[in-house]
Parts: sequence; C-alpha cells; structure tokens
Amino acid sequence: MSVLTVTLNPALDVTYPVSRLTRGATHRVVRPSVRAGGKGVNVARVLHTLGDEVVATGLAGGSDGDRLVRELTADGIAARFSPISGETRRTVSVVDADGEATLFAEPGPRVTDKEWAGFLALYEELADAADVVVLSGSLPAGLSVTAYAELIRATSTPVILDAGGPALAAGAAAGPAVAKPNKDELAAAGGDPLSLGATAVVVSDGPAGMRVFTGDGVWHAAPPETVTGNPTGAGDAAAAALARSRHLPWPERLADAVALSAAAVDHPLAGDVDLDLYLRFRRSVTSNRR
Amino acid sequence: MSVLTVTLNPALDVTYPVSRLTRGATHRVVRPSVRAGGKGVNVARVLHTLGDEVVATGLAGGSDGDRLVRELTADGIAARFSPISGETRRTVSVVDADGEATLFAEPGPRVTDKEWAGFLALYEELADAADVVVLSGSLPAGLSVTAYAELIRATSTPVILDAGGPALAAGAAAGPAVAKPNKDELAAAGGDPLSLGATAVVVSDGPAGMRVFTGDGVWHAAPPETVTGNPTGAGDAAAAALARSRHLPWPERLADAVALSAAAVDHPLAGDVDLDLYLRFRRSVTSNRR
Repeated sequence: MSVLTVTLNPALDVTYPVSRLTRGATHRVVRPSVRAGGKGVNVARVLHTLGDEVVATGLAGGSDGDRLVRELTADGIAARFSPISGETRRTVSVVDADGEATLFAEPGPRVTDKEWAGFLALYEELADAADVVVLSGSLPAGLSVTAYAELIRATSTPVILDAGGPALAAGAAAGPAVAKPNKDELAAAGGDPLSLGATAVVVSDGPAGMRVFTGDGVWHAAPPETVTGNPTGAGDAAAAALARSRHLPWPERLADAVALSAAAVDHPLAGDVDLDLYLRFRRSVTSNRR
Repeated sequence: MSVLTVTLNPALDVTYPVSRLTRGATHRVVRPSVRAGGKGVNVARVLHTLGDEVVATGLAGGSDGDRLVRELTADGIAARFSPISGETRRTVSVVDADGEATLFAEPGPRVTDKEWAGFLALYEELADAADVVVLSGSLPAGLSVTAYAELIRATSTPVILDAGGPALAAGAAAGPAVAKPNKDELAAAGGDPLSLGATAVVVSDGPAGMRVFTGDGVWHAAPPETVTGNPTGAGDAAAAALARSRHLPWPERLADAVALSAAAVDHPLAGDVDLDLYLRFRRSVTSNRR
C-alpha cells in the first residue's frame, strides 16, 4: 500500500519554547526546533509512523523550501516536491512553559501558471504509481479554486480530499472517493454532504466524533473519552487513517479514523500520534448506523 | 576608501508586523520582512548607504546562511562569507501597530576549528586589501575568546573593535586602532579605557554622547537633542562613522560618530540612517576637550 500526500501550501513549522511570552521583551530561545509542516505533510508523517509507504509531494520554493525537503528526508519521509520561485512560508509557534501557544503564520508564496503545469506533470506520474492520494489544506495564491478538481480528474487513483472553503466545493464536484470536511466547513459548503459530489463524505465534529455519508447509509463513531488538544493534528490523522484503511468496510474505516484522530489530538505537534493510545482506542471505538 | 566589516555571528533578521501581539492567539502576518543582520552587517549597510566601498565578511551556514548572503547581495552590499556547517541564526521581531517590539533570538551555530581556519585564510586576504577593518558583535559558540585578538594580529590594516564582555578585553589587548565599548561594557572590562590596549577608546553612553580616550587627550561630544530608539543601530552607525573618518583629527571624528549615531537611533531597523538628520546633526555637534 502506497500513499501520495499532496501539500500545495506547505510550511516550515518553527517552535520557540520560552519560559513566558512577554510583550515588549527580548526572549533568548535556547532550543528552537524546526520541522516540515502543512496538512499533507502531517498526513505523510502519521503514515510513516505507522509503517506505511508514503511519498509527500507539493510545491516548495526558496531556501525554506529546500530546508522543508531536507527536514522531511531526515525524518525518513520520501519528499518529491516541485520547485517554485516564491519562498515557502514559515509558521512560528511560541510555546510558554505552561503550554500556552502563540502562533505567527506567514502568508504562502504566489504560484505561477508555469509552476502549476510543472507540478501537474510530476503529480500525474506520482499519483498513477500510488494506491491512494490525499489532497490536504489551503491553496496558495495564484492557483485557481479548481486546482483540486484538476488533480482529482488527472488520475484514476482514488483521492481523499481534506479541504475547506471554495476549494472543498470545487474539488468535491470532481468526484473524489472521499471528502473530509469538518462540520463548519460542510455548513459553509451548503450543508448537504451527498450533494457535494464525493463518493463518501466524512464529517468531523471534534470530540463529538465523525459521521460518514455514503450511498449505502450513514454511520457515526465517537472517541471513547474526550481528548482535547491539537485539532489540526487530529484532522490530519483522520485523513491518514482513511487513506490506509481504504479496503475496509465503512463502519471499521470510520472507527479507525476516530481512534487515530483521538490518539493525535493530545500531541502538541501535528503529525505525531500516540501508538499505544491508538491501539487502545481502536479496540473501544465502534461505528453505529444512523 | 574601502572598509571590511566582520560579523562572526550574523543573523537573518525577520520582522513580523501585527496589529497587536496577544498571548495564545494566532497572528496572520500579512507582510513579513527579512533582511541580513548582525552588528557588522549593520555597519556595512550604513557605509553602503553613505556611498562607501564596503565588503561584509564573517561566518554563514545552512539555508539561512545562503539567504543572508543573497539578501545582502540584493541590497547591493558585497558579501564574502566563509561557510560553516551550522545553521545561521534568526531573530524574529514582532512589531505591534503602536511600535512595541517583542524579540525572539535564536542561538547561533557552533563553529569548528577547521571552519575558523578556513575563515582566517579568507579574512587575511580581505583585510589586507581593505583600508580599515571593523570587528563587531558577539563570538559564536566554539570560538576562543581570543578570536578577535587573532584577527587584529593577522593584518597590518587598522582595526576598529566593537564588542563587549570577555571578547572586548581579550581583543583590545591585541592593540586595535580603536575599541568602542559602551559605558557598561567598559565598566565590566575594568573601567580604565587606556589600560585596555587599544590606541584609542571610544565610550558611548546613550543620549549623554560619547567620549574618546587617546594618548593626546580626552574629548566628549553629545547629540544636540535627545533621540530615543534603537540602541543597536546607534552603536553600529557610530562604528561606521569611526571607520570612514579615520583620517580626521579626533574631535571631528568623534562629532561625526555622535551625529551619525543619533541619525540612526530613531530608525526601528538597525543599519538604517536618516541622511538629512545626519547632515543637520553634523553641523551642530562639536567635541570638547576634557
């Protein structure tokens, strides 16, 4: 089983641990950490942790784009990013000793038509070689809202689409195997999952769990206990679960997504999962038909 | 007149303008800016602005080291940095709409003996081709406290040393043409300027101005009005003035340093000076013998 994850707007995620953030002060950051981020990169990280074969692709540019690829490679994840002239963005998280995080998010680079064409050629090759494709996150400036629809139509490999806003509606219309909005994203896209165009729609609702809407029916699963924490990491873990379990029937698949998502949510870094917690949750989560 | 500036621990200075820094919040940074920084780099920037010929050297490594050199080159400043395997540090300044700045400073890389030897070879070539050398700022980890003394002894070109702490005492002992501590740095080094070892010692004291201690006497000069702002930029502008005015008698040279320093202090970015303000201050600042 081989998964291709697509991150069109990845980021270099920088964490600055400080004793306490104080406005107007100078903070000496003794141990800054840097790692490759962005929703599709997080999906790739979860799959790699679980021992799955995964390739991370997307658009990367400038010295931070080079570093993103280097960091991924150092973490053992195959990275095949297409070059752009703009500089890959950074996110900086200042984390206090009590865990309070303050985030600074740079805007992404602008992508040209020529760069998009270059990516498409690489993508077609990689997607055709994969068993499943995961498209995750926001579109960088310069791309059409139909960018995800183009990627879905460009391959016969099943695609999981994890996006919100106009990219969700325009992408789902191209008929991916799965669309995975959260409750708010679904409401913004009209609220009716089966009219979106995807074969199945998984709707996440935080600690209340997830529902899947399919032609065969609707199922619901919820985590066995409330875990609060990092919702980005939780959504990316759910997408990873949906990719790796694609041969299972929907009740099992949904339960797996809920369990893996819950095992990721208490980790401060998106892309990390607690494998023991995952296995424990996997035994206790069940899906119920609605 | 050609100046060589040396920055052994440069930084990529990143500025994040935000409406207001709020602990725990996510800040979308619409217009981040990046430029090459570090005290010697700021000196080079001031000299370039004034039309002087200047070469910036030092140690740079990793993708941010590459970017530092690219940014300097894009700003029109000749950059001849020696490579190291560590990653050049960043500083991140979060600046609120009301001007309040919150700073995050990464630690610098560690420098190996082999990397230092490589830099020394480049330095000797560049220093011998220059009319004056300016050594500025802190020493990166891995270097001996006598690093500046080695650089002063390695060339017959006059050297201006702008450093504090042990690097000041150990460097000044090698007999540079000028040492430029601030009042606190001088006190920490024993308090007696003429025992340091430099031919002349310029001691800055913020809005109270500067004194120069030479074998021929002591002079004092103060800015015509109190300008508050960026003390790093002020000190680097003073070092730039001392480099470019090295053929002038001390009373004029000191007045020039005070005027250029005051013209830099009200700029939020170190290395920027207000040329109109400089020329106006230059006419009104005079040095008095003490």
